[in-house]
Amino acid sequence: MMKIDVLSLFPEMFEGVLNSSMLKKAAEKEKVEYNIINFRDYAEGKHKVVDDYPYGGGAGMVLKPQPVFDAVAAAKEKASHPAPRVILMCPQGERYTQKKAEELAKEEHLIFICGHYEGYDERIREHLVTDEISIGDFVLTGGELGAMVVIDSVVRLLPDVLGNEDSPVLDSFSSGLLEHPQYTRPSDFRGLKVPDVLLSGNHRLVDEWRDKQSLKRTWERRPDLLERYALTEKQQNWLKEWKKERDS
Amino acid sequence: MMKIDVLSLFPEMFEGVLNSSMLKKAAEKEKVEYNIINFRDYAEGKHKVVDDYPYGGGAGMVLKPQPVFDAVAAAKEKASHPAPRVILMCPQGERYTQKKAEELAKEEHLIFICGHYEGYDERIREHLVTDEISIGDFVLTGGELGAMVVIDSVVRLLPDVLGNEDSPVLDSFSSGLLEHPQYTRPSDFRGLKVPDVLLSGNHRLVDEWRDKQSLKRTWERRPDLLERYALTEKQQNWLKEWKKERDS
Repeated sequence: MMKIDVLSLFPEMFEGVLNSSMLKKAAEKEKVEYNIINFRDYAEGKHKVVDDYPYGGGAGMVLKPQPVFDAVAAAKEKASHPAPRVILMCPQGERYTQKKAEELAKEEHLIFICGHYEGYDERIREHLVTDEISIGDFVLTGGELGAMVVIDSVVRLLPDVLGNEDSPVLDSFSSGLLEHPQYTRPSDFRGLKVPDVLLSGNHRLVDEWRDKQSLKRTWERRPDLLERYALTEKQQNWLKEWKKERDS
Repeated sequence: MMKIDVLSLFPEMFEGVLNSSMLKKAAEKEKVEYNIINFRDYAEGKHKVVDDYPYGGGAGMVLKPQPVFDAVAAAKEKASHPAPRVILMCPQGERYTQKKAEELAKEEHLIFICGHYEGYDERIREHLVTDEISIGDFVLTGGELGAMVVIDSVVRLLPDVLGNEDSPVLDSFSSGLLEHPQYTRPSDFRGLKVPDVLLSGNHRLVDEWRDKQSLKRTWERRPDLLERYALTEKQQNWLKEWKKERDS
């Protein structure tokens, strides 16, 4: 069973997400255990202070090393896995990808550190953390949502978490191309119709249509994905056609 | 006041996040109003079916157009803003960035559509949606976490939402460079020391150190950001130095 500890000053943020849908089911099946730790509980002193002004001046507060170091030490001791991954959610981190999700899914113990408004004292980064992760080039109020994103993408990869009913129709990044369009009943919804080929019952034509749509969508929206993709001869010919159309 | 409607089959996922920290305060200050809509409530028929098998066969279920179209129509009518943005969270969407957050923060009414496991009937995409957004190249169980990410990044940009206490120390993507290292007390934490320059009281040296560290971190971790950044002559010289060191 994977163990996931999350250090946050806003533990209540996690309740709705961890208690719904796949993440809840995974815990019920004992594939994963979540533990949300308010690291303020580890702060020394009567006032349980977790942040302080930055050395050298400037706006904003900085998370003190002591509460974070001690909360991580307690989590490590409790889990007694030899080498947990200690993951700092921060904008300076490496960009999160599906490849990283697959890597983390092989671990037994993940510890997430989430700051909120504040910066992190650099000693946390240098001496405590094994991975720094950013989910993208946008500014969030804290690391919590990023940690939830990583947790969701990792837990769904654990063995026996996804059943057959949760098929990977969203798994664009596994095949290398974006998903083709999908349609369901009715075939005519308020005048909007399903393409004839999908109603034809001809599986060969359906597959070809899907393959083509998938490639076209990727070419139009995410040409960067094609750079790493090995095209078949047929796909290369489609691309040539579309480029000719575009440039004519 | 901005109005945010979210269509989801898992409305309980949003509770913890929308009722904490900045997102909660923004609602209390009446800068934003959240409305989480279970679009199953709009499904026709006794069994309130929201998904069905895909035309042309294949694994997975597809969200039917009717419940989504009708839930969006109801949200539009209730808000009576002339042209809300209708945002589909999906892996095929445009990659979310801070620039998009700034664009959405100017709107009066956002409607998010979140699928979960299922694909979307293409007619939703083509005839209902104004924006398709993906938060990154990783696979999530549903659109809900993506919607929360977008909401957090947008709401914090609304006027008068962030106070002075919530200073933008995490705002790496506004300056164009990654944030420099931060330190706070104690200056010696279990043998780990703060760099002398930050304790010197010399503001000119502190600023120079920070500028240099910020550039160095960006160069090491996100060289792509430098391509769009106008370097000063001093910064160009530092870069030359580091490249020389690296290659020697």
